[in-house]
Amino acid sequence: MRGRERKGAGFTGRDRRPSGKPHMGRPARERDGPIILYGWHTVGAALKNPARRIRRLWATENAARRLADEGISFPVNPELVRPDAIAARLPADAVHQGLLAEADPLPAPAIEDLNDGIVLALDQITDPHNVGAIVRTAAAFGVAAIVTTARHSPEATGVLAKSASGGLEAVPLVTVTNLARGLAALRASGFLLVGLDTEGTVDLAASQLTAPLALVLGAEGKGLRQLTRTTCDVVAKLELPGAIKSLNVSNAAALALYIAAMKLR
Amino acid sequence: MRGRERKGAGFTGRDRRPSGKPHMGRPARERDGPIILYGWHTVGAALKNPARRIRRLWATENAARRLADEGISFPVNPELVRPDAIAARLPADAVHQGLLAEADPLPAPAIEDLNDGIVLALDQITDPHNVGAIVRTAAAFGVAAIVTTARHSPEATGVLAKSASGGLEAVPLVTVTNLARGLAALRASGFLLVGLDTEGTVDLAASQLTAPLALVLGAEGKGLRQLTRTTCDVVAKLELPGAIKSLNVSNAAALALYIAAMKLR
Repeated sequence: MRGRERKGAGFTGRDRRPSGKPHMGRPARERDGPIILYGWHTVGAALKNPARRIRRLWATENAARRLADEGISFPVNPELVRPDAIAARLPADAVHQGLLAEADPLPAPAIEDLNDGIVLALDQITDPHNVGAIVRTAAAFGVAAIVTTARHSPEATGVLAKSASGGLEAVPLVTVTNLARGLAALRASGFLLVGLDTEGTVDLAASQLTAPLALVLGAEGKGLRQLTRTTCDVVAKLELPGAIKSLNVSNAAALALYIAAMKLR
Repeated sequence: MRGRERKGAGFTGRDRRPSGKPHMGRPARERDGPIILYGWHTVGAALKNPARRIRRLWATENAARRLADEGISFPVNPELVRPDAIAARLPADAVHQGLLAEADPLPAPAIEDLNDGIVLALDQITDPHNVGAIVRTAAAFGVAAIVTTARHSPEATGVLAKSASGGLEAVPLVTVTNLARGLAALRASGFLLVGLDTEGTVDLAASQLTAPLALVLGAEGKGLRQLTRTTCDVVAKLELPGAIKSLNVSNAAALALYIAAMKLR
């Protein structure tokens, strides 16, 4: 997490913009330029996903052999490189495991097309590690989609993709300009809208839940924005017996998904 | 997560050793030198904890006023500084919220003194963000202690303390030299030892659990070491319905704690 500047200028992925520069408004899937995928699970899952268009692939000899051993085919010829050549193109702390790809963003459904299962909606959760962990857990629970805002959300590339550990290939990310309008569209499709907040009025585990269900999570500290909160049908909390009443947001997402999946099955 | 080198040399906390330098073996609580706490929840919880000895405290005027407004008293006179002066002493991405403290590590019980409730044991989980999130969630579930190894574990300072968001004040960290021997000591005190692993033989939610209970978590990728695994009474998995079968370790810890707390209540 510390140390040297990123090197290399060969990538145009969005995670390479200078730190702190704000997101601009267009949905991720409409942007130009490839996204960056690195790490064994992340690149391996992308290679196995027929919907993912890989533009370029760099691999160490070991990683290429391991992919071949696992019967994973290459949609493009990998450029065999030394580990340093990959490391030089990534943040200093990136664990790339000999694999790096440039790819197109995945196509995503329109929010109006969602009509089943559990959906997560993220209200301006900005930390890419947290969003990546949420994507991974969402994939583990078979979540139908994750709805994020075009602004104030990290893009589905780089650190987020690495933290998602292949989950991006399994859960579509639906980007909306306005979350309250996105939630209204979900309601119109029959979704129950349940916000999660430490100030929630009911215990999620004691709530009556129905499918399709949207679980709405806010950023740590800020929580749900006022308009998001009032748009939800109910704002629930996670009943926690200990001294601390607020969890890391990806931990909260995991518990909420588990509770919801239990209640809906 | 990118960018400039850390500045300042005023701290001797252990998170300031150069990146990549391996941990040496002594338990954290026996080491010399203060630990570093920053951020509102982390420092606020430390100030409210009578067992936490604060050596020095730096605060912005705003943060000092906010502490006073909340009735939090200062065990040492805060040095009022500008935000930059705090930022300069922390990693570039540190969210310090105007508060920074040097403190002593907390006293911790010996492993032989644990005899009740749920204990988490971490088998060489090295990422301080993950361990911090686990400490926070453990505090939310009223976990009795977290057992870690002296080597291959991050120290309870800096990023870990920030990610724990005050949880360090609520959950003792018990450091052992050898985890298998530590687990044996827990068994001798009546603990059921349940390892968590994607290759577990039973579903945790379908397992018979008894208190006192130790849940043993391995590092992502590596999982439980062989000796750890064979020391456990049972190795369980989290049954996940989706495409991905492995979670971020702090998410896995949250689910395991929830399931265990439900089954034991």
